[in-house]
Amino acid sequence: MGPLFTLLTDFGAGSGYPAQLKAVLLGAHPEARLVDVSHEVPAFDVLAGALLLEACAPWFPREAIHLAVVDPGVGTARRALCVVDPAGRRLVGPDNGLLTPFLGAGARAFEIAPGTAVPAPRSATFHGRDLFAPAAAFLAGGAAERLGPSVEDPVRLAWPGAERRGGALVGVTLVADPFGNLVTSVREADLAGAVIAEARAGGERVRFVRTFGDGAPGELVAYVGSGGRVELAVREGSAAARLGTRGVPVELVLA
Amino acid sequence: MGPLFTLLTDFGAGSGYPAQLKAVLLGAHPEARLVDVSHEVPAFDVLAGALLLEACAPWFPREAIHLAVVDPGVGTARRALCVVDPAGRRLVGPDNGLLTPFLGAGARAFEIAPGTAVPAPRSATFHGRDLFAPAAAFLAGGAAERLGPSVEDPVRLAWPGAERRGGALVGVTLVADPFGNLVTSVREADLAGAVIAEARAGGERVRFVRTFGDGAPGELVAYVGSGGRVELAVREGSAAARLGTRGVPVELVLA
Amino acid sequence: MGPLFTLLTDFGAGSGYPAQLKAVLLGAHPEARLVDVSHEVPAFDVLAGALLLEACAPWFPREAIHLAVVDPGVGTARRALCVVDPAGRRLVGPDNGLLTPFLGAGARAFEIAPGTAVPAPRSATFHGRDLFAPAAAFLAGGAAERLGPSVEDPVRLAWPGAERRGGALVGVTLVADPFGNLVTSVREADLAGAVIAEARAGGERVRFVRTFGDGAPGELVAYVGSGGRVELAVREGSAAARLGTRGVPVELVLA
Repeated sequence: MGPLFTLLTDFGAGSGYPAQLKAVLLGAHPEARLVDVSHEVPAFDVLAGALLLEACAPWFPREAIHLAVVDPGVGTARRALCVVDPAGRRLVGPDNGLLTPFLGAGARAFEIAPGTAVPAPRSATFHGRDLFAPAAAFLAGGAAERLGPSVEDPVRLAWPGAERRGGALVGVTLVADPFGNLVTSVREADLAGAVIAEARAGGERVRFVRTFGDGAPGELVAYVGSGGRVELAVREGSAAARLGTRGVPVELVLA
Repeated sequence: MGPLFTLLTDFGAGSGYPAQLKAVLLGAHPEARLVDVSHEVPAFDVLAGALLLEACAPWFPREAIHLAVVDPGVGTARRALCVVDPAGRRLVGPDNGLLTPFLGAGARAFEIAPGTAVPAPRSATFHGRDLFAPAAAFLAGGAAERLGPSVEDPVRLAWPGAERRGGALVGVTLVADPFGNLVTSVREADLAGAVIAEARAGGERVRFVRTFGDGAPGELVAYVGSGGRVELAVREGSAAARLGTRGVPVELVLA
Repeated sequence: MGPLFTLLTDFGAGSGYPAQLKAVLLGAHPEARLVDVSHEVPAFDVLAGALLLEACAPWFPREAIHLAVVDPGVGTARRALCVVDPAGRRLVGPDNGLLTPFLGAGARAFEIAPGTAVPAPRSATFHGRDLFAPAAAFLAGGAAERLGPSVEDPVRLAWPGAERRGGALVGVTLVADPFGNLVTSVREADLAGAVIAEARAGGERVRFVRTFGDGAPGELVAYVGSGGRVELAVREGSAAARLGTRGVPVELVLA
């Protein structure tokens, strides 16, 4: 049984670029198991990629190696990174904040220094294939420390969280999924088990429910989504089409 | 060699949701073989999902386990189902008609009762990951009967068939494929080997041919498609754009 | 470990058709390793498919079998082909030019003659499933010669190259990738190491850079792309939206 790799990019599944990453991984590990997380991250949207990784990577077996490439700065001076999170998960990607969810206390980060464990990339435009995939392949048999020097200041995205304001939790929408459901900056942990008496989003009143199936057709509802964040949805409709996608204010009044 | 699973959903391949199903399957069966049937079923279109399953599942080895989630009623009282068809194929999905093509005479159906072979789902919004995938994983090593009680009245979609009217077979279009070819409610078996003298669809005259390659560019043609149903196509064009997608009347005059 | 197959089609990943190809391959080789190159080749765009194969196939291990189906002539008299390129790579697809990049000096081509190593296709509309996939499956255990007679005149696409005009190399754009980057008919080899003093595309002046990351936001730049061809890009924008996709003239003035 070969090592397990997941892939997340903004390349487009049909672009041929993800196939080239897989070709490199299979060249190094002919029995590699390969799972696509997404190749449809909106182009260059590092935040959307980070949130998708946050939602998906923890479901995979701990030994999976996560290859993530949303990389507007390819070929420039931005560093390439391997992160080992406190749970031992290994992730590879550009040092532009994409790996932020795994950079909590206890995480270690290493620069992927070309010319050591992996050769210098042959292209300046496709580090996914020429630098990150070889680094991921290396990790299946080698220690992260051998990729390069320790990085003490990896780039972290500062995305909105939830704020307590009087008796309410206040946040914003962050991204939409393909159903038009909106993922917000309020995490299940922020609720701390509190009951929601009333909710508002983008000026509209919103019913807080257990699941979007509890909404009436066309009704805007909020609920704790499967990724551990409060989400907004319109049953048989699109909350994103109704409210917009990013930065819509959300207010949860606690009972 | 691990068990073979196929996946069909309306989640969108890039949404991260199919990846979470796969993570669960790989957690249970590290050598699982995973094949995507489609993650682009139109959102909540149970009929389109059922027709796609009908066309695809029979081509897989008999021992494949088919995980199908098009589930507008997630989190509500709709049952979760495992179907074992007369050929021994196993399918898992919501009890909303999605598995209709496999519910013919001799099929057996079992409710997936949470808390028996599979634990209660941890989310109310993502039963694909939290209920159906664990049930599919269970089936790779356990009997369908152990998932829960036998279901005698699974939901069946009543979709249009073909009707004999005088010397003609009459039906309607059901879905379009990505080329804009239209799959109709007339099955090859309905023709019973008869020769088609003349065909009509949506008021237009249609030539009945062996394959759409026999049409002239821009010509509307009908033929027996690869999925065993009469299809309509426009060579180098889209029959769906010309006629509409669902419910367009089709008439085949037999010679 | 099973044989490695890659798949390239214009079927659409969610159409169910690629799944049926995989079902056939897995039926023949239960441990087959399957990698999608693309199922989003624009419908019937043989040139786009050929360029994508050219960019991707060489990255895979030599023993991979490449199954490629962009086939407007399915069911007509066009031949079905297996190509063995000078490096020993095996490709299967319609004889319509799709395999042109692998038909250089030293390549061998064989007709896939139904009724010999593979049975006659059961459908006239889906040779991908009924003829090409069985032929690819056969190749994993049998010699290409056994598929049918040698073909001396396989169809070759005549696509534009690069032309020397005075001190300049002149070509055209061929296809766009999902970022809107344009792949041109000028190959890295055509540059022969020369330095580009000045570049023009579609009447606009273009800066020649090492990577699109070197461009200013909104700037149109040219560079040698990861597939070995000169490409045009707009940083944080789309060169295709700005210039058009196919046939835009490109001029590279050599220093």
